[in-house]
Amino acid sequence: MNIKPLGDRIVIKRLEAEETTKSGIVLAGTAKERPQEAEVVAVGPGAMVDGKRVEMEVKVGDKVLFSKYIGTEVKVDGEEYIIIKQEDVLAVVE
Amino acid sequence: MNIKPLGDRIVIKRLEAEETTKSGIVLAGTAKERPQEAEVVAVGPGAMVDGKRVEMEVKVGDKVLFSKYIGTEVKVDGEEYIIIKQEDVLAVVE
Amino acid sequence: MNIKPLGDRIVIKRLEAEETTKSGIVLAGTAKERPQEAEVVAVGPGAMVDGKRVEMEVKVGDKVLFSKYIGTEVKVDGEEYIIIKQEDVLAVVE
Amino acid sequence: MNIKPLGDRIVIKRLEAEETTKSGIVLAGTAKERPQEAEVVAVGPGAMVDGKRVEMEVKVGDKVLFSKYIGTEVKVDGEEYIIIKQEDVLAVVE
Amino acid sequence: MNIKPLGDRIVIKRLEAEETTKSGIVLAGTAKERPQEAEVVAVGPGAMVDGKRVEMEVKVGDKVLFSKYIGTEVKVDGEEYIIIKQEDVLAVVE
Amino acid sequence: MNIKPLGDRIVIKRLEAEETTKSGIVLAGTAKERPQEAEVVAVGPGAMVDGKRVEMEVKVGDKVLFSKYIGTEVKVDGEEYIIIKQEDVLAVVE
Amino acid sequence: MNIKPLGDRIVIKRLEAEETTKSGIVLAGTAKERPQEAEVVAVGPGAMVDGKRVEMEVKVGDKVLFSKYIGTEVKVDGEEYIIIKQEDVLAVVE
Repeated sequence: MNIKPLGDRIVIKRLEAEETTKSGIVLAGTAKERPQEAEVVAVGPGAMVDGKRVEMEVKVGDKVLFSKYIGTEVKVDGEEYIIIKQEDVLAVVE
Repeated sequence: MNIKPLGDRIVIKRLEAEETTKSGIVLAGTAKERPQEAEVVAVGPGAMVDGKRVEMEVKVGDKVLFSKYIGTEVKVDGEEYIIIKQEDVLAVVE
Repeated sequence: MNIKPLGDRIVIKRLEAEETTKSGIVLAGTAKERPQEAEVVAVGPGAMVDGKRVEMEVKVGDKVLFSKYIGTEVKVDGEEYIIIKQEDVLAVVE
Repeated sequence: MNIKPLGDRIVIKRLEAEETTKSGIVLAGTAKERPQEAEVVAVGPGAMVDGKRVEMEVKVGDKVLFSKYIGTEVKVDGEEYIIIKQEDVLAVVE
Repeated sequence: MNIKPLGDRIVIKRLEAEETTKSGIVLAGTAKERPQEAEVVAVGPGAMVDGKRVEMEVKVGDKVLFSKYIGTEVKVDGEEYIIIKQEDVLAVVE
Repeated sequence: MNIKPLGDRIVIKRLEAEETTKSGIVLAGTAKERPQEAEVVAVGPGAMVDGKRVEMEVKVGDKVLFSKYIGTEVKVDGEEYIIIKQEDVLAVVE
Repeated sequence: MNIKPLGDRIVIKRLEAEETTKSGIVLAGTAKERPQEAEVVAVGPGAMVDGKRVEMEVKVGDKVLFSKYIGTEVKVDGEEYIIIKQEDVLAVVE
């Protein structure tokens, strides 16, 4: 993986429907906001607030829920990834 | 329960109409904002403000009123949950 | 009363027209913002600002003026209440 | 006077056209913003900023200019008053 | 002059076209924002920021450029004045 | 030059097309935002932030790129100038 | 290169499609936000926050992903560059 996100951004890889089923989570919701499950593959250094770096809460390998309509898609070596801000992560799935 | 919300988010489970009646609370309101009753099932670690963690005010087991049109619905093991921010909780019902 | 508002929210009970007349206050105003009189029945712990709790200015029993179009209505044991933020209280009537 | 404004709000009483003329001030302006003259009849304790109370700059008895389209009208014992925020006072007339 | 502006507001008197010409300044611009020249006739005590008074940069007698569409017009003893915030002063003409 | 900008404003003089060519810079861009080259002729004292003056980064004589649609035009002694805020300067051309 | 960006702006040069392919990155995405790859050719001194300079995270030579619809295009000596803010850089490609 050769993308290093800036600030409080993270790079995630959307989990396929099969994996979603395996973890027992099915995502429902209105058309306006439908969360999806993904795995974190890269984490930025954290945002700078008042000159101090704020430590990130998610780490590489975490499975996270995020809104489908957020983030920017990129394709690296044939794989699709999404770059989002950590604040757009709804929850970590354990 | 295997969803761990981030920051000041909480996971709640909507209470059925029967339970609502039992607690003596009937929710009225305009069509624009109709609160609903729910039980808190997971609580985030709290928001970071100026590098310090702000302690959460609600805890697991609290019954809360929240606006019907706020939050993101997820389904885990056949149960429906909603992820909202603590600031969107109107009140705790005791 | 079994509703405990969060943060700087308060729960108020709208005063009937008769009481309004008794206190000598008649509320006029444009259609856009018409204040109403209510009694405070529950007060939140206060907002958190920079990690410190800001003390509330209104207390249970205060009669307050508030804008008609603000807040969320709830019905408890047959009585109607409104949950608003303290900053939406215009004035205390003494 | 039995209305005690909260925060940095003040209660003012609009001066009649006669008084306006007497003080030598005639208010002109575009249709979009027309200031009016009023007398301050009640002053809030001041806004809370970072846990400290900010002292009010106007006091009871001050004659002030304010924008016609700002504030909420209330009627007490047959008299009409307006509740506005101090920041909406344009100037004190001496 | 009997108008005392609050906070960081100032009272200015628009300079006539003749004076504008004398100082060698002709004001051009788009229809959207056309600056005008005026003389400062009253200065507020300065804005309060974090409990401290911020000293004003303009003083009575200064000639200033300001946007035509900003401020509130008042008429005192037959003279027209404009109340604006200091931040809406573009520049001082020396 | 007799215009002294306030705060973090600067006064600039648009460079003619000839000069633009000489410096080897041609400005392209969408219709929405087309930068232009100008020379700084006056610099304000800097913005006040939390009671402290923030030093300006550009100085008189600097050639700067700025967006065509920003600022207020004034004409002094037959010359046209533009008043903009320093934050609207995209870059200094060296 | 003779453009020195101000504050937290950077100057970048869009990478051609050939280079994009070489690095193994293909950029996909919705029409609303399509990232592109570019090389950083100039970096501003960093933003001023509360009187302190915030160090920049990207440096000259970095390859970055940025949104296609952000920034201002300039042409210097026949080469096209884009001026953007560092916060609009999505990630550094290593």
